[in-house]
Amino acid sequence: MEYNMKLYEGFLHGADYNPEQWLSYPEILQQDIEYMKKAHCNVVSIGIFSWSFLEPEEGKYNFEYFDKIVNDLWENNIKIILATPSGAKPRWLAEKYPEVLRVDKNKVRQIYGFRHNHCYSSPVYRSKITKLNKMLAERYSDKIIMWHISNEYSGECHCDLCQRAFREYLKTKYNNNLESLNHAWWTGFWSHNITDWEQIHSPVNIGEPDGIMTGLYMDWKDFVTYQTTDFMKAEIEAVKSVNENIPVTANFMGPYQPLDYHYMKDFVDVISWDSYPTWHSDRGDVYEGHTIAFAHDLHRGLKRKPFLLMESTPSLTNWLPYNKLKKPGMHRLSSLQAVAHGSDSVQYFQWRKGRGGNEKFHGAVIDHNNKPEGRVFDDVKNLGITLEKIKEIAGTETKSQVALVYEFRNRWAIDNSSGFNNADKKYKRTCINHYLQFWKRGINVDVIGADYDLSDYKVVVLPMLYSLSEKQIDNIEKFVANGGTVVATYMTGYANETDLCYMGGFPGGKLKDVFGLCADEIDTLYETDFNFVKLNNKSFKVVDYCELITPLTAEVTGKYEMDFYKGKPAVLKNSYNKGKAYYIACRDTGELLNELYEEIIKECNIKYHILPYGISIHTREDDFNNYLFVENYTEKEQKVSLKGKYIDVENDNIYTDEINLDAYEIKILKSTI
Amino acid sequence: MEYNMKLYEGFLHGADYNPEQWLSYPEILQQDIEYMKKAHCNVVSIGIFSWSFLEPEEGKYNFEYFDKIVNDLWENNIKIILATPSGAKPRWLAEKYPEVLRVDKNKVRQIYGFRHNHCYSSPVYRSKITKLNKMLAERYSDKIIMWHISNEYSGECHCDLCQRAFREYLKTKYNNNLESLNHAWWTGFWSHNITDWEQIHSPVNIGEPDGIMTGLYMDWKDFVTYQTTDFMKAEIEAVKSVNENIPVTANFMGPYQPLDYHYMKDFVDVISWDSYPTWHSDRGDVYEGHTIAFAHDLHRGLKRKPFLLMESTPSLTNWLPYNKLKKPGMHRLSSLQAVAHGSDSVQYFQWRKGRGGNEKFHGAVIDHNNKPEGRVFDDVKNLGITLEKIKEIAGTETKSQVALVYEFRNRWAIDNSSGFNNADKKYKRTCINHYLQFWKRGINVDVIGADYDLSDYKVVVLPMLYSLSEKQIDNIEKFVANGGTVVATYMTGYANETDLCYMGGFPGGKLKDVFGLCADEIDTLYETDFNFVKLNNKSFKVVDYCELITPLTAEVTGKYEMDFYKGKPAVLKNSYNKGKAYYIACRDTGELLNELYEEIIKECNIKYHILPYGISIHTREDDFNNYLFVENYTEKEQKVSLKGKYIDVENDNIYTDEINLDAYEIKILKSTI
Amino acid sequence: MEYNMKLYEGFLHGADYNPEQWLSYPEILQQDIEYMKKAHCNVVSIGIFSWSFLEPEEGKYNFEYFDKIVNDLWENNIKIILATPSGAKPRWLAEKYPEVLRVDKNKVRQIYGFRHNHCYSSPVYRSKITKLNKMLAERYSDKIIMWHISNEYSGECHCDLCQRAFREYLKTKYNNNLESLNHAWWTGFWSHNITDWEQIHSPVNIGEPDGIMTGLYMDWKDFVTYQTTDFMKAEIEAVKSVNENIPVTANFMGPYQPLDYHYMKDFVDVISWDSYPTWHSDRGDVYEGHTIAFAHDLHRGLKRKPFLLMESTPSLTNWLPYNKLKKPGMHRLSSLQAVAHGSDSVQYFQWRKGRGGNEKFHGAVIDHNNKPEGRVFDDVKNLGITLEKIKEIAGTETKSQVALVYEFRNRWAIDNSSGFNNADKKYKRTCINHYLQFWKRGINVDVIGADYDLSDYKVVVLPMLYSLSEKQIDNIEKFVANGGTVVATYMTGYANETDLCYMGGFPGGKLKDVFGLCADEIDTLYETDFNFVKLNNKSFKVVDYCELITPLTAEVTGKYEMDFYKGKPAVLKNSYNKGKAYYIACRDTGELLNELYEEIIKECNIKYHILPYGISIHTREDDFNNYLFVENYTEKEQKVSLKGKYIDVENDNIYTDEINLDAYEIKILKSTI
Repeated sequence: MEYNMKLYEGFLHGADYNPEQWLSYPEILQQDIEYMKKAHCNVVSIGIFSWSFLEPEEGKYNFEYFDKIVNDLWENNIKIILATPSGAKPRWLAEKYPEVLRVDKNKVRQIYGFRHNHCYSSPVYRSKITKLNKMLAERYSDKIIMWHISNEYSGECHCDLCQRAFREYLKTKYNNNLESLNHAWWTGFWSHNITDWEQIHSPVNIGEPDGIMTGLYMDWKDFVTYQTTDFMKAEIEAVKSVNENIPVTANFMGPYQPLDYHYMKDFVDVISWDSYPTWHSDRGDVYEGHTIAFAHDLHRGLKRKPFLLMESTPSLTNWLPYNKLKKPGMHRLSSLQAVAHGSDSVQYFQWRKGRGGNEKFHGAVIDHNNKPEGRVFDDVKNLGITLEKIKEIAGTETKSQVALVYEFRNRWAIDNSSGFNNADKKYKRTCINHYLQFWKRGINVDVIGADYDLSDYKVVVLPMLYSLSEKQIDNIEKFVANGGTVVATYMTGYANETDLCYMGGFPGGKLKDVFGLCADEIDTLYETDFNFVKLNNKSFKVVDYCELITPLTAEVTGKYEMDFYKGKPAVLKNSYNKGKAYYIACRDTGELLNELYEEIIKECNIKYHILPYGISIHTREDDFNNYLFVENYTEKEQKVSLKGKYIDVENDNIYTDEINLDAYEIKILKSTI
Repeated sequence: MEYNMKLYEGFLHGADYNPEQWLSYPEILQQDIEYMKKAHCNVVSIGIFSWSFLEPEEGKYNFEYFDKIVNDLWENNIKIILATPSGAKPRWLAEKYPEVLRVDKNKVRQIYGFRHNHCYSSPVYRSKITKLNKMLAERYSDKIIMWHISNEYSGECHCDLCQRAFREYLKTKYNNNLESLNHAWWTGFWSHNITDWEQIHSPVNIGEPDGIMTGLYMDWKDFVTYQTTDFMKAEIEAVKSVNENIPVTANFMGPYQPLDYHYMKDFVDVISWDSYPTWHSDRGDVYEGHTIAFAHDLHRGLKRKPFLLMESTPSLTNWLPYNKLKKPGMHRLSSLQAVAHGSDSVQYFQWRKGRGGNEKFHGAVIDHNNKPEGRVFDDVKNLGITLEKIKEIAGTETKSQVALVYEFRNRWAIDNSSGFNNADKKYKRTCINHYLQFWKRGINVDVIGADYDLSDYKVVVLPMLYSLSEKQIDNIEKFVANGGTVVATYMTGYANETDLCYMGGFPGGKLKDVFGLCADEIDTLYETDFNFVKLNNKSFKVVDYCELITPLTAEVTGKYEMDFYKGKPAVLKNSYNKGKAYYIACRDTGELLNELYEEIIKECNIKYHILPYGISIHTREDDFNNYLFVENYTEKEQKVSLKGKYIDVENDNIYTDEINLDAYEIKILKSTI
Repeated sequence: MEYNMKLYEGFLHGADYNPEQWLSYPEILQQDIEYMKKAHCNVVSIGIFSWSFLEPEEGKYNFEYFDKIVNDLWENNIKIILATPSGAKPRWLAEKYPEVLRVDKNKVRQIYGFRHNHCYSSPVYRSKITKLNKMLAERYSDKIIMWHISNEYSGECHCDLCQRAFREYLKTKYNNNLESLNHAWWTGFWSHNITDWEQIHSPVNIGEPDGIMTGLYMDWKDFVTYQTTDFMKAEIEAVKSVNENIPVTANFMGPYQPLDYHYMKDFVDVISWDSYPTWHSDRGDVYEGHTIAFAHDLHRGLKRKPFLLMESTPSLTNWLPYNKLKKPGMHRLSSLQAVAHGSDSVQYFQWRKGRGGNEKFHGAVIDHNNKPEGRVFDDVKNLGITLEKIKEIAGTETKSQVALVYEFRNRWAIDNSSGFNNADKKYKRTCINHYLQFWKRGINVDVIGADYDLSDYKVVVLPMLYSLSEKQIDNIEKFVANGGTVVATYMTGYANETDLCYMGGFPGGKLKDVFGLCADEIDTLYETDFNFVKLNNKSFKVVDYCELITPLTAEVTGKYEMDFYKGKPAVLKNSYNKGKAYYIACRDTGELLNELYEEIIKECNIKYHILPYGISIHTREDDFNNYLFVENYTEKEQKVSLKGKYIDVENDNIYTDEINLDAYEIKILKSTI
């Protein structure tokens, strides 16, 4: 179903609400709604950890307390996002049906505990939770605005049920042809060929650990996403069977390694995610600013639609190595950054700090002192007021001329493949480093998959795209052939989707023509090693990787300056049909990318800003207005030049050509299209 | 029973003696007693690892060799401390009764091996060992001076017997009321509520690991201490049933994380401990000097009585990362430091280096060369002579005007609670840093629990007392109300005894009045972060933690100088009824504590010394004499000013107003009261 | 059987060849032989991972594809080394007979996966593989030049079959006398005495982990070597039963911790090993050069015969933390270094990079681009040409006047023994540091065991020989008595072969007389500690260990300059009968060794060179010629002085008195004897 936030007439602002912690404190439950209003909160997510309260014994349900909570919220105009409570199971379920408990990488069945750890294949678990989901839907569908399906899907299970499901998955994928599977997994190596489907087992520490059979690993990872999604679909079906008009979301977790959100995204109506930046860390806020921007753009990119910020902290976390307070201004900046990137909500985990449990020191709107006041509460309240003032922006879209491909599956392949620098290949960070070049110039970027339709973009950035299916290669080729510009790096197109290396030289298949070159060898540098590349008559330091290239049709624009490959190509540019393909054969420390992207951005006529260090700009727009979010991630006041006239959406102030930003300030401006 | 070391007419000096290693070397056994006399040793601990020799088959006992050992020692006036041999089990026992073997945190039953690893709940183990204990008591009670109950009690077991015992323990604690338990553990979080006692399981790695359910963790840790003590009590009962007049001890291990000695202490007659300082390490000897002093004072504090140094090394250890030799003087200093803090013995592990086994390179009185000579032997011998010269000091008491609260349970709570700096909250080190302020001024300190009677003290120091029961809060409140002075820090009184946070703001309950302030937020600093506090017009560097305080009645004496809380309170002082309460909202690097304690010590009229760096003084006294131990932990000669006239107890030398100390020298002086 | 490489008329040059990976690519299999010829390769190792192809179902054999491979190779004059395929098992075997799967240190039976991980005790595995081995022998013996028995034997198993075999091994070793075993393991400590053979269990993590019972550990490690060898012998017997004239080898792995090659060596005809140096690492190539030289000399030392370089990489590895390319010249240098040290082959893993699997990025002769060209291919081809040019050297011997004892068992004992510096005792590195003194002077060294006949040497170096049997002590004593010179260090002769300390002082037994001293204590230094030793009026920095020595008859030549042992002996020299014994009581940073060995080398009339930094020289000889390999491990051109006239074996150039070496160059010279 098509989701449109305009339905909610503005932004959502609220929190995960866990009244189950307070059932023996009626006075607290009473205060909560009053405090929510004071905090300008208009939505809560409930039910996330309610299963053992809703169904305290098998088949014995108790909706009484929940009815009251829902009614109180409803009557007080607090919107409800209702979670399916599959994220944490009741103890009786684990006791009676051990199959719901996961088997870990050591093949040990876990006992009850923790959360987010049920077997996605267990028929019992599915049947119990979908029954409950349906009952919840029947009881509350008329009072809720959205379904929050489970919570932060994650993890994997190695039980026999999962093994069986994995084999069935493979039979389907490989058309019951073991030879195809043996080839895809290259089992001829180490005499690992499979002669019976029953011989297949997931990668575990006591057998074939990750990193050993890379094809098995890729298929297993795909299966984990598939099976998780299959479970999610069963949950969704249960609630949609009652009322198909209520949109569903599942809270995702950024550029998360264990799952492929490019697959999962199609089965939810709305994308939402839980964002926990590490502000004020020893890496600095500009680092954190563009890192988290990348994640926001990834979630918006999933559907190229507005998304929801489902969880964030109103102050600090409790589970990081260092749990720092947000400095004045940062709560507003961090929250509105999400909005700048396309979020139609700012929501928190959680409404109120519990007295006990693992997350009792995680920031919440209401602290242990139980008072609707203080620095954190005021930050939340003021943000609520701001969201009300800018409500016209809710539902507006983001337009990007630039896309950057971040592939979950590529991360699996590249990290799991033994070679190069085994400690850390830095795929994610490399993507973010390329992303930074646009962020610091105030250019919107869609972070997308290599299968996505690329036709709307001028430039597509492809960092370290080691693993590419032939279909993905075709997609890229078509884009360039039709006039697009791509930028790729060392390690492009080495292997296919099950991590089989392409024969005939790298990058595989048509990409050799697209880039007009062949990558012969790749040198891995020690931490203490470095080289230089000469480009545009300047020298740039390079580190980590230096590919040795034989140019075919490509023009060599940058050359190594040291080691035995001194004078060999390091940066190349190729014309391919109507388009252009850049290739960067080495990893640099940022300056080379800066030089090169400056050139590309100009050449491709991408509109950009000249901004001081630590400032970024993002835009949303509708048919009439263009909204600019001007963000300062530094602790000092800064001046930003902006040609033209802008209206401050919060207070109707008018700025011409220049605005001032305080430390950590964000201004939301409007210009008419 | 009341223990009085005077009974033994002087100090005990001796070692763990393991003749079982040498049964096939009769010539060695013969030499041992001769060498003990040469070494001026007058006591040995035997039986610690004798079980498999005393009962080589189930029910088949062999006391013959032991009779001879006991008789030989007895006839040669070597006093005997007899161990119950439960510390290491015979193989046949593990083979026939697997229940005696522990189940570890992964729920895996261990196989036979190592030591100190039996299940404390096993009825078989208890019945076998108590039978043997009783037989030992019947056979040797008339020849021994003390029982050494087991050895270094430690560890935990997760077997079904322990699960059952844990559930019974909880039923008793919570009066069979599951609701109380659910509240105490805050199970409403993550849907973890317990609906049947049988659902309860100890924290294990494959279910609810440490750190997840903090209430469960606290109760489990309490249970481990309870069950260990219960086992110890059964052992004690067995030997006391034969002769209740022989005192019992159990060798403790300093500020040891796994057990709560504040609970265990009541069930032994005499406190003893095993002390293994790391002299000459890269942290320096002054660091080690006050660190180990803290541990001595903790053991004396347990009963506020003299204790025994049950184990130490005559030269080096074998199990540290670096095993260094003691420099000349250090053996004497290290040994007499224990005496200075209240020990009535100096005992070693072990008498003689074994030829094999895990500890064959651990220092011993007799080395592999089997000669009663050499540097180590001479050090031991000379110490024996000194102990004889100062024997009048044995049994004398220690008087302290200052107490410092170190709570084993607080360490569990604070370390297990997710938040702040998760890598290391440094509770123990912070206690020792506060302790240092008194150590370096030659002020005796009792290290005690928060439940202890505080009425005899002028100052009570409460570093990082995060977890406090209401009863403990009352105890502190009463002390201040009656005129006492307390010094507390950030993180005081956040949670109760099962780690439930106090509602209504920190510090919890009455402590807000006692300190006259409210702690609103706490900032955790990165290693690279710092701030400054202005106090008495001086600037002090602060690190790690900065609490943000709202003063109520307290006077603000120190203020932050940086970050967004610049100008906010960092050090406060409150008058409460007849007493005073200091609050230090941040962690400093030592200089701020120095400044503040200087003030407090003077204000409270605590007698102190002005001492050069690395010198400390401790005192013991009886009705007639005051004994001063003047200790030099530096490698250089130092002069110490001491007003008045002192007699050197060893040689009757007389010093007036000043004494010289050589490198690592300790002098034992006497002044008449 | 006596192996003589002369049979093969020159050097072997080739690779592991795994056609099983390419059975569905007939065009690739066809190209392979053509490419081998182009690469001047004359040998391949096949069959290593072929089991599941040769026996795809139990008892159902398929030799068809293998017949074709063998025939094609044979017809094209590519020599064949045929592996017994026991290194990786078929899945059906693991499925049907779980006993073939190992039980790990946690007592968990592994599931199918990986390689080199079958139980060496399993009767099923032995019977299946020996049957297959015999069939291979019957089918291919007439076409192969050597057997490659299994692959890189390694690892251990803790299953019940292994436990039983271990107990039988011990019964034999200890003549069914449990008392002897109890004494050897010093079980009296910690009440661990064994009263029934059935109580014995291998060291495992859930019982008696490594480091706890050191005697058990030593016997277990011996058993692992014994049982591995027993398995290997069964494999050899199977192939020799068909044709006993084909030599067998097993590829070893350098100074490898898990096995004692001094035991295994006697059961193979030819020594071979797999060498993977880390060129161009941050430790530098001179470091790597002498480190790998040590390993080559160890393998030559095993039989004091030429050996084979069975595996190496033609370019880079894929499994190191950093996988760097070889710089120009390094492939030749690295390969010919092996020849310089006695190798009669240069072989690679593997011929062709697989498309998938764990090692798809490990260097190979043919890359993914599938072309017989490029830098790597050319390096291989040119080396093949060189090996043809110098073929007269194949089979020539190495003469050494110096031996260095590296004992696998000593490494077990010293590393497993708790004490000293527990993090890393650096036994292996210390041996290599002593070895370096000869390497940098161009002196051949045999790296041998302490049991070896020493009579041919002038100098025998014994670094850190902590564990020595009485027989080994006798061997050393006899060598010195007869006029030999030994150099030993701190920690010599502390313990016997089951890690029981010698009584009566260190070094144990006769060694006190040989060295004329007694080692009383040993100080372990922190990383931040150091001392100095004065020798020949120069000061040398010492670190890590300082032994305190009482000289008996030895002359003190070096003395400590700091700490409480200032002025005490640090370097000593003793005359014993006709020989000399040097003792270095401390670890230095290289300069002291340099000073001392300079003296010893001159005193013993060992011929040496004066070489620039990073240059070494090694020699091989036959009855007529002396071959010099002059090696440059630096990246710069160097001049080397060599008295006399030399012919370059590759090109007949003549050099007189001096030669020039380019970066990483190796020259192979000849002088007539």
